[in-house]
Amino acid sequence: MSTDLRNRLFKELDSLILIDPHTHIDALSPASKDLSEILGYHYYTELAHSAGLARQEIEDPEITPREKVGLLLSNLEPIQNTIQYSWLIEMCQKFFGFDGELIDESNWETVYDAAQEKMGQADWSDQVLQQSGIEAVFLTNDFDDPLEGFDTSVYIPCLRTDDLVFHLAKPAVRDRLEICTNISLESLGSLTQSLEHLFTHFTRENAKACAISLPPWFVPTEIDFGEAAKALEQIQSHGEQATPESKETMAGWVFWKLTELCDEFKIPFDLMIGVNRSVYPAGVYQGMDLYDSRVSLIQYADLFNAFPAVKFPVSVLASVTNQELASYSWIFPNVITHGHWWYSNTPTFIEHDTAGRLEAVPQTKQIGYYSDMYKLEFALPKFAMYKRILAKVLAERYVIDRNWKEQRAIDFGKRILRGNVESIFHV
Amino acid sequence: MSTDLRNRLFKELDSLILIDPHTHIDALSPASKDLSEILGYHYYTELAHSAGLARQEIEDPEITPREKVGLLLSNLEPIQNTIQYSWLIEMCQKFFGFDGELIDESNWETVYDAAQEKMGQADWSDQVLQQSGIEAVFLTNDFDDPLEGFDTSVYIPCLRTDDLVFHLAKPAVRDRLEICTNISLESLGSLTQSLEHLFTHFTRENAKACAISLPPWFVPTEIDFGEAAKALEQIQSHGEQATPESKETMAGWVFWKLTELCDEFKIPFDLMIGVNRSVYPAGVYQGMDLYDSRVSLIQYADLFNAFPAVKFPVSVLASVTNQELASYSWIFPNVITHGHWWYSNTPTFIEHDTAGRLEAVPQTKQIGYYSDMYKLEFALPKFAMYKRILAKVLAERYVIDRNWKEQRAIDFGKRILRGNVESIFHV
Amino acid sequence: MSTDLRNRLFKELDSLILIDPHTHIDALSPASKDLSEILGYHYYTELAHSAGLARQEIEDPEITPREKVGLLLSNLEPIQNTIQYSWLIEMCQKFFGFDGELIDESNWETVYDAAQEKMGQADWSDQVLQQSGIEAVFLTNDFDDPLEGFDTSVYIPCLRTDDLVFHLAKPAVRDRLEICTNISLESLGSLTQSLEHLFTHFTRENAKACAISLPPWFVPTEIDFGEAAKALEQIQSHGEQATPESKETMAGWVFWKLTELCDEFKIPFDLMIGVNRSVYPAGVYQGMDLYDSRVSLIQYADLFNAFPAVKFPVSVLASVTNQELASYSWIFPNVITHGHWWYSNTPTFIEHDTAGRLEAVPQTKQIGYYSDMYKLEFALPKFAMYKRILAKVLAERYVIDRNWKEQRAIDFGKRILRGNVESIFHV
Repeated sequence: MSTDLRNRLFKELDSLILIDPHTHIDALSPASKDLSEILGYHYYTELAHSAGLARQEIEDPEITPREKVGLLLSNLEPIQNTIQYSWLIEMCQKFFGFDGELIDESNWETVYDAAQEKMGQADWSDQVLQQSGIEAVFLTNDFDDPLEGFDTSVYIPCLRTDDLVFHLAKPAVRDRLEICTNISLESLGSLTQSLEHLFTHFTRENAKACAISLPPWFVPTEIDFGEAAKALEQIQSHGEQATPESKETMAGWVFWKLTELCDEFKIPFDLMIGVNRSVYPAGVYQGMDLYDSRVSLIQYADLFNAFPAVKFPVSVLASVTNQELASYSWIFPNVITHGHWWYSNTPTFIEHDTAGRLEAVPQTKQIGYYSDMYKLEFALPKFAMYKRILAKVLAERYVIDRNWKEQRAIDFGKRILRGNVESIFHV
Repeated sequence: MSTDLRNRLFKELDSLILIDPHTHIDALSPASKDLSEILGYHYYTELAHSAGLARQEIEDPEITPREKVGLLLSNLEPIQNTIQYSWLIEMCQKFFGFDGELIDESNWETVYDAAQEKMGQADWSDQVLQQSGIEAVFLTNDFDDPLEGFDTSVYIPCLRTDDLVFHLAKPAVRDRLEICTNISLESLGSLTQSLEHLFTHFTRENAKACAISLPPWFVPTEIDFGEAAKALEQIQSHGEQATPESKETMAGWVFWKLTELCDEFKIPFDLMIGVNRSVYPAGVYQGMDLYDSRVSLIQYADLFNAFPAVKFPVSVLASVTNQELASYSWIFPNVITHGHWWYSNTPTFIEHDTAGRLEAVPQTKQIGYYSDMYKLEFALPKFAMYKRILAKVLAERYVIDRNWKEQRAIDFGKRILRGNVESIFHV
Repeated sequence: MSTDLRNRLFKELDSLILIDPHTHIDALSPASKDLSEILGYHYYTELAHSAGLARQEIEDPEITPREKVGLLLSNLEPIQNTIQYSWLIEMCQKFFGFDGELIDESNWETVYDAAQEKMGQADWSDQVLQQSGIEAVFLTNDFDDPLEGFDTSVYIPCLRTDDLVFHLAKPAVRDRLEICTNISLESLGSLTQSLEHLFTHFTRENAKACAISLPPWFVPTEIDFGEAAKALEQIQSHGEQATPESKETMAGWVFWKLTELCDEFKIPFDLMIGVNRSVYPAGVYQGMDLYDSRVSLIQYADLFNAFPAVKFPVSVLASVTNQELASYSWIFPNVITHGHWWYSNTPTFIEHDTAGRLEAVPQTKQIGYYSDMYKLEFALPKFAMYKRILAKVLAERYVIDRNWKEQRAIDFGKRILRGNVESIFHV
């Protein structure tokens, strides 16, 4: 009975057209050109590498797309248990007519060719969006992205600020900033001007959010002007050789300034909390980062208090931080629970974390899911995974445990899936 | 089948008359005088505020009880998903004959009036206790509570010690202590005398426990007498301007002394571990506190070792500390698992935490639940929530997974619910 | 349906003959001589003590085996709810024909005598192995174990290194090392030689792993040679009175050297991370240790990076570290998830932790379970517990949630249970 109920709820949730509030889509090349762009997703390369495939083989500069797909699909047997592998299979079933359960050396070429046939069609990305029930996706744009050449009502810009906050000591970053703003970086004043310039540019081009990923040690605070000025000098004269303290001071100052601009320009600031970069430097591209789960949202209390008018959709990397996220969102009006990020984007953690949020956070303050995808084909299987889990939790914990009518559970689910994206990001 | 089984177990558990081992009931006004005392519970005000209702509106000094109820119930739509909202509905169904699922601007007045009709009856609090299957509740009394004017076998005193440990630097607290004990606070000696005086007074009035809530940073240790004497001097001459170190030293000394007195007077010391106060100072009354989940019971090892004869019923604020609680209780004879506190008092966390305890902690050392309520009407829905979860866990993890007979599971549940409250607190 | 499905999966998993990859079996006395060796397992003594039985009674030097069993079994009522108690009952049912659900003062003698009848048989340990479906078990040998007198293909040696890393300051440990290697400990050079000697001896005797348990504060790093030389001098002249810093330096140096030897001798290094020793010094034998769950695998990043060719089967003590373990194993090729250790070896935590691993870690890099037993009789009920949970998770999360065919789920389970033990440890 519970399985039937889950299926009924899933069917209703699945009928909804969605807006994906966080992706890494390249708006100029949103869908894949061939299957190597699917298999090149770090989940497959890093898991294949973890299971024994050499990075040198995976990242061989001479390898053709077809060879890369052959190499990977002939070596994924060790990861056929993973949820990430199931995304690949579901995608191939839904988009390319694949009807098996496994892809390996025996059948990958058929799948490759079937995919190629579809991916070669001129309107492929529109087909994907439509078949996936997605009407728009948020991007994650570099600060110097011209935001030109695409429909910003479908590919909604979002200002990514990691480089500005954590890498301003790199001459290349400062150069990029000077070039795109045409403002010479001489002081905190001109730095402020360039940041304002970015916000003006982005919001004019329909940007609906600012976003950043943050390491576990980061504690945002308002930085003294004099200290920040000294840190900027340090950075300008020594670049990456600047002291760690001045880099941290600069990071703190820029972060706080960006939040002020979110306040002024009235856009939410997506905080993605907890990642340590390059923990495994010998890993494949994008497969080097991990975390220290000893992080607390108490580190963000000053920030949340200082900016009551800024909405902070918060993602946490580790499931052990999820209860804090639910509690902080239950208390702070400006804290919003946001999706299931990366290492917590697997069914067991999603189920536990979603259940913990659904019953304790106002239903207007929960954004259920984003795909975090680099290529459009991933929205379908990733959202399907989430919707199945959401249907399971609504079935078991609301319809069964709390005697809710099915329609009430469905309406709740739909708000989590879509309604809140609209109201929180004003789309 | 599993649902039928759960219902059968629930029915048996629900037939038990209980003692509620931790509440904030005012024994002189235990039940609500009108529905505003229900809606004024911080869960409703803080969640409504988190969802957008201004604190100024909620806490408007001019607002009448009826207006406050109208304001809140017309603005709870965003929190209708929460478990806290379900407590309200179940309470109104069981006590006031409400037969809907939602209360909003369309029907709140009917509910208000129905409640008023009941709450106006002279024996309302006795009706509530009887209908809730509660025969006694523990209070949480200020140290200077005269404990007069009520039946201490129904409203069982418990000495709350937060002010003594963490706020002795406040002149008002020292004044209250001097007044209620009639002992002039001149030295550690006279401070000891006043604390003894409190224990004598409380235990003579049937107090069955001492209780305190503790911040994550607190690490109890025995403080050197000389240092404590200096800290007391600091506090007496500088009050709240005393150094943080002397305040911490004083907190440590008083806490240790209170534990010695628990030992001497043979009453358990309820430790409620992990709360940070005023993390969101702009929040509503009692809706400002949060936590840092990076706390460990290793901080309490010296305490547990130093006082083998003192029973410590321990509550933890974050579910991530629950496994430590289960493990420390499995090893230390004097550590007892105690209820599901505050941010962990929602079904997903209760279910995971209860399941983890049931199978690893001796059944004599687990106190299943307390309501933590301020008004008697909350015992019924809160205990009902817990009993449903307990029935679920016993059904799934004992009767199904471990092949227990139903009666054995019921007996285990009853001991957790009631038997252990009697044996641990000697009531 | 789900229960039938679970039973079918369990039956298939249960038909497999296993190798137990981590135990504390004494190869010269692998099974129990009488029931007191079962009841003397720290789980029973510490839980009985936690529930009120005095250590002095349990550890009375005059007590006979029969009396000890009588004492304990007459006092286990408070722990009849625990999973550990269920191991005892299942063991007595399967091995000794016991057909009840509880053993207490009324029937313990019958069980004692039935056990004695079996345990007295000359081939009892072989019977136990066969009835338990175990063909070999890994030992955990002291470094000076001669490894003689037993069949090392059934009782597979494993070099335990806790003493070498954390207790080299103790003269007794250095003496034992000098005696068993016949190398005088004069310098880092001779220390290296003795460690090499141990590896040569152990691997020649079929040792398949090196193992160590580690406290939460430990952060492995490569130690400067000069510093390590000074630390060794300190330790040699002051013994246990050496400074804590020199002890830590020595621990770091020896640990790193052992890892180099694992690399050279091509054996995995089992890391068991997170235990604090003697937190409750008044506890019973082996019932004094607990933990601080604030530990992170980021502490091991340098180690994992420095030794890409060494396989690290990692166990974590607290369930809150499990997601990190799954993530580090998903990224680092040399990190392997290893069983469910001690305080996390109870069904609720196993279920959550296993589910989190199964769906995110390559299936070749997960070792499902080890018994950690001291006496052979425990393998049967402990592995049965794990196999039931594994069957539950595979049924619910793979066959039902993900539509896997049953056979595919069974094959996955078998690899976790046995196949990976073979491939990872080369047995």
